[in-house]
Amino acid sequence: MTPFELPTYADVEAAASRIAGVAHRTPVQTSRTLNEIMGAEVFFKCENFQRMGAFKFRGAFNALAKFSPEQRKAGVVAFSSGNHAQGIALSAKILNIPATIVMPHDAPAAKVAATKGYGATVVMFDRYTEDREAIGRRIADEQGLTLIPSYDHPDVLSGQGTAAKELFEDVGALDYLFMPLGGGGLLSGCALSTRALAPQCILYGVEPEAGNDGQQSFRSGEIVHIDTPKTIADGAQTQHLGSYTFPIIHRDVNDILTAPDTDLVTAMRFFAARMKMVVEPTGCLGLAAALKMKNTVKGKRVGVLISGGNIDLERFCSLTAAKA
Amino acid sequence: MTPFELPTYADVEAAASRIAGVAHRTPVQTSRTLNEIMGAEVFFKCENFQRMGAFKFRGAFNALAKFSPEQRKAGVVAFSSGNHAQGIALSAKILNIPATIVMPHDAPAAKVAATKGYGATVVMFDRYTEDREAIGRRIADEQGLTLIPSYDHPDVLSGQGTAAKELFEDVGALDYLFMPLGGGGLLSGCALSTRALAPQCILYGVEPEAGNDGQQSFRSGEIVHIDTPKTIADGAQTQHLGSYTFPIIHRDVNDILTAPDTDLVTAMRFFAARMKMVVEPTGCLGLAAALKMKNTVKGKRVGVLISGGNIDLERFCSLTAAKA
Repeated sequence: MTPFELPTYADVEAAASRIAGVAHRTPVQTSRTLNEIMGAEVFFKCENFQRMGAFKFRGAFNALAKFSPEQRKAGVVAFSSGNHAQGIALSAKILNIPATIVMPHDAPAAKVAATKGYGATVVMFDRYTEDREAIGRRIADEQGLTLIPSYDHPDVLSGQGTAAKELFEDVGALDYLFMPLGGGGLLSGCALSTRALAPQCILYGVEPEAGNDGQQSFRSGEIVHIDTPKTIADGAQTQHLGSYTFPIIHRDVNDILTAPDTDLVTAMRFFAARMKMVVEPTGCLGLAAALKMKNTVKGKRVGVLISGGNIDLERFCSLTAAKA
Repeated sequence: MTPFELPTYADVEAAASRIAGVAHRTPVQTSRTLNEIMGAEVFFKCENFQRMGAFKFRGAFNALAKFSPEQRKAGVVAFSSGNHAQGIALSAKILNIPATIVMPHDAPAAKVAATKGYGATVVMFDRYTEDREAIGRRIADEQGLTLIPSYDHPDVLSGQGTAAKELFEDVGALDYLFMPLGGGGLLSGCALSTRALAPQCILYGVEPEAGNDGQQSFRSGEIVHIDTPKTIADGAQTQHLGSYTFPIIHRDVNDILTAPDTDLVTAMRFFAARMKMVVEPTGCLGLAAALKMKNTVKGKRVGVLISGGNIDLERFCSLTAAKA
């Protein structure tokens, strides 16, 4: 069906060797309070404690570490206003590769500053009149740079898969695993690890309710495109799954669930108040869905992947205060 | 000099056996950003991830686990509006010991609810007209309960010492170690572990600038009493060191430093924004002092103990927003 070869768990293993000692092996945290609420044993894989604050570092570093000497010399280009930008910029800095990041002109100043802080060149575009993909491709062509997309790339998704690999290695097999779904880089990579290390585990991707293109795609068997969804889960505001991520998800994932923004806020408050962790809205998707599935997962061993913790403190406080 | 026997590192080791499998072995987190800022390698022992959100669980559980069958049957009484209350209440619940907690009538509703949630009986007193110690002692005498103070008790401080024991076991010897100082239970217990496991380590206690009774006591050689200090570090609003904690601190600690509330807010923001952790103001004392000592600790291996993360989200946001 797919006109190209999909990555396998062997690629995740190779990625794990590449990122060893560079990426953090993030901790698995638990909460007895939550276990009592759920009547289940819940293990959180904390990618909010990953370098630059999100799992995106894994895939970015894996992709850049595979560059040929020529590619390294010419440099990398990426378009992102979020965690992928910082993942690429930091990886490029570590590997001494020139990086150009295409960001919308209204990107938060803190994110622009962080990206520049890693030494990347930032190119601004007007998100209302210009097409960032076209700009990225033009820069890549004109300057001979390698474009690394944020999710639809075999090396990127293989790198993300190392998160679930570590989780299973640390806590053993699980009955259920919930993880955020945007473009599917994390979910597809981790699906490879799940099928290799815990084949019986029921694996769910969780999307914002406002943007359930993944759920529609999963159930229809074809990639569905939607308008950019309005949700506080900015890391999952993708319009469609990718040509690499979708076939793996369709083959290896059990179902796609959704969570409304209000449930993400509830989860964000729980993480901060009870587990003393800052988690960005996208990172709350897994817990929000697991809480909804309480009756189903009762008595089981449940994994929840927290994708990241990159949120401005002011935004964090305004979101969590809404439920105070 | 001291008219009673002081605990030793053997007591910390015994405490470690008692709390094993009950207390969390909390993770040690690092931040490459901070290491670059400091020019040093900094290891954070994260007691904000301890059960009930603070190191206090260690000492409380150790003290209660040593109760005789008669003491267990009769029960425990403690006075505290903070983490000690919850540490005792949770430990008592686990050990099936009746617990009475004496709390001020204006204690935050959330803390009263949490304490009751662990099954403890809460007795309220008026902090402006009544003496909580007297009330606690009266309840203990009348009902035959065992009073467990929040810091000045050999079993409590020996339990707290397990935090530094774990830190040294996990990361090896350190050149410097910074930790919060209130009544000295944590500092004295961890001083025993430090002298046993990293004898050359320079150990600092850090107090709120507004309440430097520990510093005065350390330097004068006698326990100095002060009025309850005005500081956001509510866990360190103690008026004096204890008869057990002071002699150990005076013997085994290198110096007592102070930090102003503004520096605690800066540290709190750093923890949340860069390390994705919620840390209560008292828990920020160590980092605040370490940042001030940047030039001294350059190139060294530095430990910082984060004592807890129990702060209302609303308070957390109002404090951190002050510097936004």
